[in-house]
Amino acid sequence: MIIQKEITLPPFKRGFHLITKYITKEFNDLPKAGLMNIFIHHTSAGITINEDADPSVREDLDKLFNHIVPEGLDFLKHTLEGPDDMPAHTKSSIVGSSLTIPITNKQLKLGTWQGIYICEFRNNGGSRKITVTLHY
Amino acid sequence: MIIQKEITLPPFKRGFHLITKYITKEFNDLPKAGLMNIFIHHTSAGITINEDADPSVREDLDKLFNHIVPEGLDFLKHTLEGPDDMPAHTKSSIVGSSLTIPITNKQLKLGTWQGIYICEFRNNGGSRKITVTLHY
Amino acid sequence: MIIQKEITLPPFKRGFHLITKYITKEFNDLPKAGLMNIFIHHTSAGITINEDADPSVREDLDKLFNHIVPEGLDFLKHTLEGPDDMPAHTKSSIVGSSLTIPITNKQLKLGTWQGIYICEFRNNGGSRKITVTLHY
Repeated sequence: MIIQKEITLPPFKRGFHLITKYITKEFNDLPKAGLMNIFIHHTSAGITINEDADPSVREDLDKLFNHIVPEGLDFLKHTLEGPDDMPAHTKSSIVGSSLTIPITNKQLKLGTWQGIYICEFRNNGGSRKITVTLHY
Repeated sequence: MIIQKEITLPPFKRGFHLITKYITKEFNDLPKAGLMNIFIHHTSAGITINEDADPSVREDLDKLFNHIVPEGLDFLKHTLEGPDDMPAHTKSSIVGSSLTIPITNKQLKLGTWQGIYICEFRNNGGSRKITVTLHY
Repeated sequence: MIIQKEITLPPFKRGFHLITKYITKEFNDLPKAGLMNIFIHHTSAGITINEDADPSVREDLDKLFNHIVPEGLDFLKHTLEGPDDMPAHTKSSIVGSSLTIPITNKQLKLGTWQGIYICEFRNNGGSRKITVTLHY
């Protein structure tokens, strides 16, 4: 069985943001056992899982990713859309655009400290679309 | 329902290459709703999604990954297969070897600018094998 | 059909470790065709696939990831849990917490040199839990 929903997320500022609730509120009744796939339809943002408690983790993740993939490197050609564009594409392939999470006993089986993140890598990425697919 | 196909890709030179068409041409009739998993059977290449339009994105991705994971670092032990080998293994774990994409209305539901990439991280990686699995 | 098992791994020291056998020994009889999803319930460790032969690959992967995501960067705020904590969260999002592998002819269809790794990014991460889901 397949259930699929497209979700339009509100615009987020550049950085890492918890979106677990945007997803779980769309599914009142999860299957007894299965998998949830989350896919983002953009190449300058990503989907990941990380700590859902202390907001300083999300701030530091943003800074660390900016450190790992700096802007303004002089060998870049694809610079027309701004200095944040090519690093955003790179970070998107680093964190990935797709994620699969187990569903157990009608619950998304995340660890105690795990939350689902959107990673917005553009300065003004605007609204982003994801597709959530349940299979069971 | 599961449908599975192994695809042998032609050799690509080191860098990022669009392979969407190599995959879609193998499946004349996609299911109404489901998921497609793409898995690469190699540890010095990867599978990712990124921009399918401007070729300079693919050139810059290659340069940025070479910047992030440089060759010739003096602490490396596994150097027998050449200076590109250990960075290739590292990049493979960074971009990942597996990808899952939703299928909706008999179409692979990629975003407007999204294409499927093989990331060839070796100088002479040769032909690479992927397995594509549809489940619906 | 869905089959799901939670596996508690023994504590591993910081680094990259092969866990293919911990997973395959839990499933005596794999389906004829399908997919296996592996999900780790922690935000400072990851799951990846890489070379399963030469142990120097695993040593070098650890060193390269420490090089890419160094400890002690002065802009970090989330430092209360030690200098290895925030880099561990970052590496977790880089390698990812979820992996999907094809099953073909009742075998996990890994490439000749592929093994499943746990990436332990903490100095003392302790025992880690993964959930393995078969769907077919």
